[in-house]
Amino acid sequence: MDSGRSDSVGIVVPRLFGIEQPLLLDCGRTLARHDLMVETYGELNAARSNAVLICHALSGDHHAAGYHAENDRKPGWWDSAIGPGKPIDTRRFHVVCLNNLGGCRGSTGPATVDPVTGATHGGMQVMQWAIDLPQRIGHALVIAAAPKISAQNIAFNEIARQAIMSDPEFHEGRYYAHGVVPSHGLKLARMLGHITYLSDEAMRARFGRILRDGDGQFNYNYDVEFEVESYLRHQGQSFVDRFDANTYLLMTKALDYFDPARDYGDDLAAAFRGASAKFLVASFEADWRFSPARSREIVKALVAAGREVTYAQIDSDLGHDDFLMPLPEYHRVLRNYLSRVADEVGA
Amino acid sequence: MDSGRSDSVGIVVPRLFGIEQPLLLDCGRTLARHDLMVETYGELNAARSNAVLICHALSGDHHAAGYHAENDRKPGWWDSAIGPGKPIDTRRFHVVCLNNLGGCRGSTGPATVDPVTGATHGGMQVMQWAIDLPQRIGHALVIAAAPKISAQNIAFNEIARQAIMSDPEFHEGRYYAHGVVPSHGLKLARMLGHITYLSDEAMRARFGRILRDGDGQFNYNYDVEFEVESYLRHQGQSFVDRFDANTYLLMTKALDYFDPARDYGDDLAAAFRGASAKFLVASFEADWRFSPARSREIVKALVAAGREVTYAQIDSDLGHDDFLMPLPEYHRVLRNYLSRVADEVGA
Repeated sequence: MDSGRSDSVGIVVPRLFGIEQPLLLDCGRTLARHDLMVETYGELNAARSNAVLICHALSGDHHAAGYHAENDRKPGWWDSAIGPGKPIDTRRFHVVCLNNLGGCRGSTGPATVDPVTGATHGGMQVMQWAIDLPQRIGHALVIAAAPKISAQNIAFNEIARQAIMSDPEFHEGRYYAHGVVPSHGLKLARMLGHITYLSDEAMRARFGRILRDGDGQFNYNYDVEFEVESYLRHQGQSFVDRFDANTYLLMTKALDYFDPARDYGDDLAAAFRGASAKFLVASFEADWRFSPARSREIVKALVAAGREVTYAQIDSDLGHDDFLMPLPEYHRVLRNYLSRVADEVGA
Repeated sequence: MDSGRSDSVGIVVPRLFGIEQPLLLDCGRTLARHDLMVETYGELNAARSNAVLICHALSGDHHAAGYHAENDRKPGWWDSAIGPGKPIDTRRFHVVCLNNLGGCRGSTGPATVDPVTGATHGGMQVMQWAIDLPQRIGHALVIAAAPKISAQNIAFNEIARQAIMSDPEFHEGRYYAHGVVPSHGLKLARMLGHITYLSDEAMRARFGRILRDGDGQFNYNYDVEFEVESYLRHQGQSFVDRFDANTYLLMTKALDYFDPARDYGDDLAAAFRGASAKFLVASFEADWRFSPARSREIVKALVAAGREVTYAQIDSDLGHDDFLMPLPEYHRVLRNYLSRVADEVGA
């Protein structure tokens, strides 16, 4: 436990914000009110110009940095990048991270309301808000994203959803009323996700064909045998213990739907013409889920729209999960960009 | 129905061969006897030198070419390559294709015996037999294969197995005794397989983000919506109707185990030193399940072992499924190679 380290934001306390204004969703329905679970790190300056909003990934939440308790084993999911002196420097910035609407860590989600909304994810939210709220966003950092997800991405999401929904404990989504959860389906969904977060090469380097038992003999049965099987089963099981199946359905569906060009005749450049933010787009060499080519589609559209954009393609090995890693080149890009932003806004 | 076409082998009748010799399996157990379901096309010559053995893929069977009945909608799985005047020319060759031991189309398999054996697949079988039976194999054609499967391949197989085994209708493999099949799990396994048979680009070209209903509106529910979802669900369901879940478990496990270098200190070249066959190794640009790089590992080991090897890397778009396609470059390679073989053996 290193919450006392000088580069940690230390112990943080999440707060629940009740939003009492009605919210119209893409599906046409309206939420009368909703809650958002939020964490903040660093102070808002007097000019209120130094806020950084962090948007989490599919299975992330509002706990991006620091610790909730002295004896926490792990810090927030992006602790490597957020803290005093880190690339997202909390001595200069007021950092805000919230659990997405539809989430399962405190914000209003399927456990509280009907399981359909119009939320998006991470880098995708950033793009959408830069388009929809040009006066509110000065800089947009779009990391390991795509302008819209591919048929292959949709296919993976669909298999994850079918795994959850064909679990007999799903009960058409009302599993809590039956005192159960569709654990087998959710576990499969997460195992599948993990394949897409790592590159073929990274899996080879990390697991290869190593057997879990040291004797080098095959089992000739279907028990866990290769290290990679052990890893996936463990990841799947621990996900079941912390995540809600309806949120997984909802968030994958929101990902499938995400397409900011849809309202602009499939012209992404036209969509970006209304934005006024400056953009940093970053991608990772080893990421096959959201490959560098997809990030370059975003860059191309931004350039065509006359937006100011910086693009960084980061050397990497791990895969999509590299966005969580403290790769020196990646953190240098973030640090330099945000340092200029801090100077610009007087933070 | 075109069984009357001059390039078709026409109506074929599969035959069941009972093998009465005991067969020792890799797991240490012995099969007292077993059956193999076999089809043949073209005549064996007097010198018995013109036999071509076709080894099928994971979900294939002995029905490689021609039709079983006049009103069959589809021919055998490799009809594009096997027939009079086709690359595997039945006017010159005696072509044999059998349902793998462990299969579910007539050969002895899990529906008849304990569900563990040591069978391998397709290109992998070819390599193994070239090593184990050097005096029996003159030419080995290894198409879209790998020297052993990767951690990522094992990971996909493991998720498929977990999907089947966590289906409540699996009943620890004794589902027929319960009058059911683990259809949800087998369907998921097949849907997942299909993602790996197609390239990202091919899925994009074929399905993109096209919605199944023409009105262009989102459903905002979890019914089938994108074309790619419809395709996968259809493929999954039709597989359930024709394939056995225990065979799927067994064959994926055999794939995981396959590693001809294992008995040679992890030295594939050493394994190939005992072979006497000449090799044709072919791979497809768009195949990410068994990428060209994996085929080149085979080629490198063959060269190091002093074997004669021809390597063809075929331009393609589809993915692993390209091995089934009548790509002109691919068929030209097969045709030229086999034409030389036919001359050599006097066929």
